[in-house]
Amino acid sequence: MSKLLIVGTVAFDAIETPFGKTDKILGGAATYIGLSASHFNIDSAVVSVVGDDFPTKYLDLLKNNNINIEGVEIVEGGKTFFWSGRYHNDLNTRDTLDTQLNVLADFNPVVPESYKDAQFVMLGNLHPLVQLSVLEQVNDPKLVVLDTMNFWMDNSLEDLKKVISKVDVITINDEEARQLSGEHSLVKAARKIEEMGPKYVVIKKGEHGALLFQEDQVFFAPALPLEEVFDPTGAGDTFAGGFIGYLARTGDISFENMKSAIIYGSNLASFCVEKFGTERMQDLSAPQVDERLLAFKKLTQFETQLH
Amino acid sequence: MSKLLIVGTVAFDAIETPFGKTDKILGGAATYIGLSASHFNIDSAVVSVVGDDFPTKYLDLLKNNNINIEGVEIVEGGKTFFWSGRYHNDLNTRDTLDTQLNVLADFNPVVPESYKDAQFVMLGNLHPLVQLSVLEQVNDPKLVVLDTMNFWMDNSLEDLKKVISKVDVITINDEEARQLSGEHSLVKAARKIEEMGPKYVVIKKGEHGALLFQEDQVFFAPALPLEEVFDPTGAGDTFAGGFIGYLARTGDISFENMKSAIIYGSNLASFCVEKFGTERMQDLSAPQVDERLLAFKKLTQFETQLH
Repeated sequence: MSKLLIVGTVAFDAIETPFGKTDKILGGAATYIGLSASHFNIDSAVVSVVGDDFPTKYLDLLKNNNINIEGVEIVEGGKTFFWSGRYHNDLNTRDTLDTQLNVLADFNPVVPESYKDAQFVMLGNLHPLVQLSVLEQVNDPKLVVLDTMNFWMDNSLEDLKKVISKVDVITINDEEARQLSGEHSLVKAARKIEEMGPKYVVIKKGEHGALLFQEDQVFFAPALPLEEVFDPTGAGDTFAGGFIGYLARTGDISFENMKSAIIYGSNLASFCVEKFGTERMQDLSAPQVDERLLAFKKLTQFETQLH
Repeated sequence: MSKLLIVGTVAFDAIETPFGKTDKILGGAATYIGLSASHFNIDSAVVSVVGDDFPTKYLDLLKNNNINIEGVEIVEGGKTFFWSGRYHNDLNTRDTLDTQLNVLADFNPVVPESYKDAQFVMLGNLHPLVQLSVLEQVNDPKLVVLDTMNFWMDNSLEDLKKVISKVDVITINDEEARQLSGEHSLVKAARKIEEMGPKYVVIKKGEHGALLFQEDQVFFAPALPLEEVFDPTGAGDTFAGGFIGYLARTGDISFENMKSAIIYGSNLASFCVEKFGTERMQDLSAPQVDERLLAFKKLTQFETQLH
């Protein structure tokens, strides 16, 4: 069975939406990626760092979802990374209220010996140098997927470009793709980003779905139209976790199979936004995911009577 | 064979985009709808009005595309409706520079005797009272599709609601759906609009595609990702023309067949935006449309290895 190695934050979030607000709850890119990918019953491990203020029950939650946490360093006397944000009424935009890097500031990721041969590597959103360090510790992975955001384009562009040049797939949102490429057209943006290294470019458009590009091929997965988005936090990470989780489970990294992987990513992300934080992902059952896959088919599949 | 009756403007447009500008060129909702629907070789007719400044070559263009123009009134001494607009750099928004109603101000539509039994009726964007008048002149159509815009919501809401209560399908854009329903969620907006009369609600999202709703069923058609959108003028009308044209051609108004109709609408609209005005629609060949249908299939169709 394929092994999936995930690097990213394991953190505290405090979230405000038009529907309510939370205290410090479980968050972090690696948390969402791990919970999402765990749906595929693969052998996965998280590399991250937390402080000794991080509750054991959260670590147990990861373990109980078959996520190896040997690579999650617990810093004695340290405090866990904390992010706080408030979403606007349309839930498409948000303000960051507080960011406390804490133990993340000096994070030196250590990949557990037993995951250096991971065939699938997910570089979740983090400082590009941390992502690079993880890449240097793994042997010859079959597929490396990078997620990043505009913060690193603004602050560490050269380091980011180094990582981008070494990965197979990059997932970023539409505005970030435009910023990174200098192109407004997403078709042109994807082509320019491919020239920077990745063979595949995934552009996330939030409620407008996601595009997968490889050379002149393109695939589109819609977001499921929902009555209400409750909390978008972690949707992008959950999408990425579903994407790489499906690829790791099937072991097939063809463009055709990536189409399904994108659909599974959208499928899992559509659950993530239904409740605060990771709540919905914690009680998600396989039949629920299967049923929603059917909804995605109905939403997108058609047969014409002409031609 | 089914007959399609179209009411809407036949007009002059002057367009500015980041790529250039035009003099007065052929425009108008009925023009775009007619040219798009003509791809399906159906028996169609346009009801509209122009002044005697309207070039014969434009009327010939419609005739040469097998569009009956008996119902296009030519007002002696009158001037044709004129619209002028400038698109912003992202091509998603535009400013109206000039609107001259001219002969449209006193338009009394007359449906030709031979099209009163039309099975398919397309009410293109126009004053709701004109749309109502056309509806009153037709016998028992199989399907009536309404296109409208926020201008009528702002200025003639009660008249608009009367038309909405009498049609089978309404096509409007996302912001208009939100305005009309008072709901931000498009799922909720569609449900509220269905309660106003239409059995089917089509929400157009421009470059983000289109959604088709009927009760708890939903279908999504993406816009084709293009390297460059040259001129978006008429894309929504071309979409509507492709939608109803496909339905008229196949004679099947089931939800399943509407899925294909939406795809054909998106297909034809993707050509419309490639050149200024109606230029691309004039030289569009059937094989080109067929080839792009294949592109839409590649863009959206998938098969999973799990489940």
